[in-house]
Amino acid sequence: MNGNRFGRLFQISTYGESHGPGMGVVVSGCPAGLELDRAAIQAELDRRKPGQSHISTSRDEPDSVEIQSGIQDGYTTGTPIGLTIQNRDARSGKYEPFITAPRPSHGDFTYSAKFGTRNWGGGGRSSARETVNWVAAGAIAKQILETEDIEVRAHVSRIGDIESPPVTFEEMGKHTEETDVRCAHPETAAEMREVIEEYQRQGDSIGGAVSFEIQGVPRGLGAPRFDAVEARLGQAMMAVPATTAFEIGLGRGAGSVSGLERNDEWTVDEDGDPTPVENDHGGVQGGITTGEPIYGEVTLHAPTSIPSEQTTVDWETGEEKTVQVTGRHDPVLPPRAVPVIEAMAAITIVDFMLLAGRITPDRLDGRPGEYDTDYHPSRPE
Amino acid sequence: MNGNRFGRLFQISTYGESHGPGMGVVVSGCPAGLELDRAAIQAELDRRKPGQSHISTSRDEPDSVEIQSGIQDGYTTGTPIGLTIQNRDARSGKYEPFITAPRPSHGDFTYSAKFGTRNWGGGGRSSARETVNWVAAGAIAKQILETEDIEVRAHVSRIGDIESPPVTFEEMGKHTEETDVRCAHPETAAEMREVIEEYQRQGDSIGGAVSFEIQGVPRGLGAPRFDAVEARLGQAMMAVPATTAFEIGLGRGAGSVSGLERNDEWTVDEDGDPTPVENDHGGVQGGITTGEPIYGEVTLHAPTSIPSEQTTVDWETGEEKTVQVTGRHDPVLPPRAVPVIEAMAAITIVDFMLLAGRITPDRLDGRPGEYDTDYHPSRPE
Amino acid sequence: MNGNRFGRLFQISTYGESHGPGMGVVVSGCPAGLELDRAAIQAELDRRKPGQSHISTSRDEPDSVEIQSGIQDGYTTGTPIGLTIQNRDARSGKYEPFITAPRPSHGDFTYSAKFGTRNWGGGGRSSARETVNWVAAGAIAKQILETEDIEVRAHVSRIGDIESPPVTFEEMGKHTEETDVRCAHPETAAEMREVIEEYQRQGDSIGGAVSFEIQGVPRGLGAPRFDAVEARLGQAMMAVPATTAFEIGLGRGAGSVSGLERNDEWTVDEDGDPTPVENDHGGVQGGITTGEPIYGEVTLHAPTSIPSEQTTVDWETGEEKTVQVTGRHDPVLPPRAVPVIEAMAAITIVDFMLLAGRITPDRLDGRPGEYDTDYHPSRPE
Amino acid sequence: MNGNRFGRLFQISTYGESHGPGMGVVVSGCPAGLELDRAAIQAELDRRKPGQSHISTSRDEPDSVEIQSGIQDGYTTGTPIGLTIQNRDARSGKYEPFITAPRPSHGDFTYSAKFGTRNWGGGGRSSARETVNWVAAGAIAKQILETEDIEVRAHVSRIGDIESPPVTFEEMGKHTEETDVRCAHPETAAEMREVIEEYQRQGDSIGGAVSFEIQGVPRGLGAPRFDAVEARLGQAMMAVPATTAFEIGLGRGAGSVSGLERNDEWTVDEDGDPTPVENDHGGVQGGITTGEPIYGEVTLHAPTSIPSEQTTVDWETGEEKTVQVTGRHDPVLPPRAVPVIEAMAAITIVDFMLLAGRITPDRLDGRPGEYDTDYHPSRPE
Repeated sequence: MNGNRFGRLFQISTYGESHGPGMGVVVSGCPAGLELDRAAIQAELDRRKPGQSHISTSRDEPDSVEIQSGIQDGYTTGTPIGLTIQNRDARSGKYEPFITAPRPSHGDFTYSAKFGTRNWGGGGRSSARETVNWVAAGAIAKQILETEDIEVRAHVSRIGDIESPPVTFEEMGKHTEETDVRCAHPETAAEMREVIEEYQRQGDSIGGAVSFEIQGVPRGLGAPRFDAVEARLGQAMMAVPATTAFEIGLGRGAGSVSGLERNDEWTVDEDGDPTPVENDHGGVQGGITTGEPIYGEVTLHAPTSIPSEQTTVDWETGEEKTVQVTGRHDPVLPPRAVPVIEAMAAITIVDFMLLAGRITPDRLDGRPGEYDTDYHPSRPE
Repeated sequence: MNGNRFGRLFQISTYGESHGPGMGVVVSGCPAGLELDRAAIQAELDRRKPGQSHISTSRDEPDSVEIQSGIQDGYTTGTPIGLTIQNRDARSGKYEPFITAPRPSHGDFTYSAKFGTRNWGGGGRSSARETVNWVAAGAIAKQILETEDIEVRAHVSRIGDIESPPVTFEEMGKHTEETDVRCAHPETAAEMREVIEEYQRQGDSIGGAVSFEIQGVPRGLGAPRFDAVEARLGQAMMAVPATTAFEIGLGRGAGSVSGLERNDEWTVDEDGDPTPVENDHGGVQGGITTGEPIYGEVTLHAPTSIPSEQTTVDWETGEEKTVQVTGRHDPVLPPRAVPVIEAMAAITIVDFMLLAGRITPDRLDGRPGEYDTDYHPSRPE
Repeated sequence: MNGNRFGRLFQISTYGESHGPGMGVVVSGCPAGLELDRAAIQAELDRRKPGQSHISTSRDEPDSVEIQSGIQDGYTTGTPIGLTIQNRDARSGKYEPFITAPRPSHGDFTYSAKFGTRNWGGGGRSSARETVNWVAAGAIAKQILETEDIEVRAHVSRIGDIESPPVTFEEMGKHTEETDVRCAHPETAAEMREVIEEYQRQGDSIGGAVSFEIQGVPRGLGAPRFDAVEARLGQAMMAVPATTAFEIGLGRGAGSVSGLERNDEWTVDEDGDPTPVENDHGGVQGGITTGEPIYGEVTLHAPTSIPSEQTTVDWETGEEKTVQVTGRHDPVLPPRAVPVIEAMAAITIVDFMLLAGRITPDRLDGRPGEYDTDYHPSRPE
Repeated sequence: MNGNRFGRLFQISTYGESHGPGMGVVVSGCPAGLELDRAAIQAELDRRKPGQSHISTSRDEPDSVEIQSGIQDGYTTGTPIGLTIQNRDARSGKYEPFITAPRPSHGDFTYSAKFGTRNWGGGGRSSARETVNWVAAGAIAKQILETEDIEVRAHVSRIGDIESPPVTFEEMGKHTEETDVRCAHPETAAEMREVIEEYQRQGDSIGGAVSFEIQGVPRGLGAPRFDAVEARLGQAMMAVPATTAFEIGLGRGAGSVSGLERNDEWTVDEDGDPTPVENDHGGVQGGITTGEPIYGEVTLHAPTSIPSEQTTVDWETGEEKTVQVTGRHDPVLPPRAVPVIEAMAAITIVDFMLLAGRITPDRLDGRPGEYDTDYHPSRPE
């Protein structure tokens, strides 16, 4: 409603501005009995972190996550997990010129028009820094999904006009993290890097896309009509900063394909059940999962913060003026968006698993009404 | 949660299966004081109605809407509006072969896998017949938006490989309803019709896309981060049956565009306020509306019901068999999807207007606490 | 939000005014595989129905429920169940005097102040007629609970100063329906009837209370803090028309009881588990069920529609005037509130069962991902 | 859903356990433009704080609140306000005996039965320490209500058998904070104190009640049927730890009152509008506010933590044993519950004000679409 919550049974509530004291997220609905791996959360944050290479912003943030609640003896307790991340390297000074003179295509104008004010340092609430909360929460979602052998992977599939050939789930696992571009097709990654550097040199930036795939999702998830899997994934992905398109299965291309060509006929799987011979449907039919991998693509426009001169207007004086968005900015978004998109996908799928009762909301072992000696402490050491 | 509700302050709850006794929708959150035009609701249903031409299914449904509640003396009362639409022309017999042998790429398999059963006649709950509820509710949303001079228009922008040149909002208003193809570019409409008939002759079907545009939206709507305008529009559109892509602004194309090219610089409008010189951002920046038109495109895959022979599996016998989906089916979806997409857009925008307090939730005139003699009856006639 | 929805996973959305064409409720979240008993729904409606005796209104409504969707071969399909009930015996004429001159302590004034208008016939949306929707939905909830051996019972525990001695769950089952007063203690029922008739003779009405008890609830339901079982029951019961108090366990009386006296010590049950020796806590500790019966009481004020003369003000003329609320009205509310309170309790508990995964949301048999030959039709007969 | 969120447009999400690192609350939906008074938040926390006198626990917590986000130049920005409060004085050791041997009438048993585990130190998530979050959020709600001249007051109306005579709103304002008992009737406060000390001396505790009153609420708030004002207040109050009854207006007493006696006739106010001559209805008719003060009472049972010996069962050994709940505990709850109940009332009313559009959700000044020079910084100093 207010934009700061996502999820239905697996719920996240976030706060924080780019240059405020800190970011935070309340994760509510994580079942009890998960052996929570703090290092795995941190590792995801490190993937998203600025300053990883010269094709990302040089802002220096340790992004160290602190767990404030929700665990006992290393296991989740079913109660909300409060995560906080302090902001360290905030330098608001260079944002002063934009307080009343909005940067082109940023949220400066719209936040001030909506609220009459805004936290202007570093983009405030509109900054992509907010996604640190999503990645932290998504890392918990991933750990829950792991217990059901569900895995989300993503990689950079397009940068400008450079498009990666299709890659397998295994290739994503193997190659995505090999380069700072995060394209799982190594030769394409090299080409992309060149393109990025070229735009960077010109004081410009460039768009791109991230492909994602989710494997291990059981059949039967999703609640059509309005909570179809693709509808909730659509909301999740279109909330990622700078997204302009969400596609599932054949995506936009499905518009030029005939029914005969796209329809996935049924054959028999090893259990004697119907299984589709292909997966043009992208893992979802009638809004409900078939058990096939869910895959899709998310397009992100070019970063709006660019060093080149641009024209804006100061709404106090009513006069046009020239601005330059100096500072520490990414020349391209997809590489750092990979963990963000994985996180939103993981959160969405965990939510559906809980809603379908495929994961018991109260506890992972599905034995409500009993005390569990596995993760319940008999006595503290 | 369960998939049968949409909206936050403007809420719709729907029920109904393709071949059940009737469809229905509860519209909750329509402010009091709207002079409700039943004929306008019916007119929207007529646009969506089957049997409009030989490029749509020949199922014969009057789709006559009955208003069960929520009005007094012709004005809405602020209490829920119950709408019911009876099903008349249901012929379930021809669906018997598919009870345990799912049609390719339909919801037959997934509904049965999720629920262990399903209403199988005519696709049951997974049928696009459900959208009759959405269009009826959307017609109310449109009437509310009219009071604020906000208007939604859509047209068919792609069929197979035929793509319409860009059309203006005025052209959409003028030409969309001129042909049963609903493309607002008349020459392209003719080409599209040929393509559709060709696929129809071959016992096949073809995909396409619908473009939408919303004008008159004030600046300041939207609740980033998770309830960004594009995120909620994304959910709305991806819930439309057969959608595989949602794009806003430059959409998928934004991936190949540079920051300098896409960024919309600011200039001064007649009020002395900043206004963007272009609208590559599609009416939304930082998840909040700029006041510029919101525009985008929705891709719909080819209808899965085709007369050609296809292979499936009977899950009772575990054997493959050949099926033919005879019956009355659309060879292409975008033409009848136009009013559906307009409806979902209208519902989403009304919701944001209410959430931002731009329309007072209790009553259109925004004077809570007073009795209104304009639409409150002094005495019944 | 808008007041027309209740429930989280088991959701009801209602519409309808006292004198409109009809009432309706969408029940969403009923798991698939329930053999839905329409007669049992009707039986609950008959318990709530007006005209049952001369201590209830003489309005003559068959209250015949029609199931519009959500079933196949007699079993629920997991998709929304649309229920409609036509209004037959609406006589709005006698409400004309109150259009601009609100009846004392009714919703006439407040609805018009909020919305600027209202549906004035028979109280419109503020009429207790709305509870026909609740009872219909509650009858479905009861059928779901039956599959888990959970049962809700209620009876009239107070009328004016006449208070029933405590009765057992068995007595409620045996005696509640024996008299039109619905007090499960027969001698007290007789006394209550006399009191009611006395107030009725005087052109007055009288308040009272309903006690409820829920047996068979497993331990572990409830989601503290804000969704504690008593908090959600509190919302449910305080939404029942005319309620002024909700009590759980010792209720108001707990204020004068000491910790030592109220605390329920633990002993060992037959399974070797801790079980409380008493149930002063009313089945809930820390917002979560202990497995003991949940019990409480709901107070309802006297009906506000009374034949005696009262003073009101016409807001058009600004002048005081005398009104008499003639018509068909109940002299006391608890007897007809018994099925309403049972319904709201059942809806609340089903919701918690679903939220805790104790009933699988998708289907009663808890086997998502499989086709069920028990209730899935192999072939139609 | 998961119990950690409250509110619809004014939303709070909380986390934290009694002996964890810290407590926190995300407040989302506070309109922009409120000059946020941190000291006023702290003052409310100080009212709730332990260790205020020898009739409250001696746990020593500074309860110092830190604002992490949501403000700029001292004004709220409309984005979420993250509040954190560190736990300092946690001594978990003395809770070890109860890990597998639940204290009578605490949440020990039910949390472990639900989740299979629990954070056991100091009651963990079931501790009343959680209400520190509510009071912090409520302090913001109060500041918003102040801008509309709405005020909430509460005082201790009952302790055991000692009942305060009715007090006025003014008396509550004047006397509540004069004593640590927080009864606004000074003589009764003295009596109550004696009773409390007597129970404390006996190693026992005692129940009581808190009365609340809300003045300045405009007519027209509330969304019947399920979101009637009393229904949402009921949920709010029944979520307060240890509540066993919620009453509005005449409350439980309404059961013995006749219609003629309770009905509030209408007269004319200074504006020529109808106004009720009395307020037996407690400020709400038909679920909607009349503009009269809303008042009611909340009963709290005796603290369950008492120094006397009690019997429990160890679920590991299956054996009964005697426990003593030593430590720092309140002998009575109402005094410290006063600020908690005020907070929940304030949060509920703000929410209704936003939902009715009486306060514009985006910003207090109700001028969306404009930049506000009052609280928008022209230039940083």
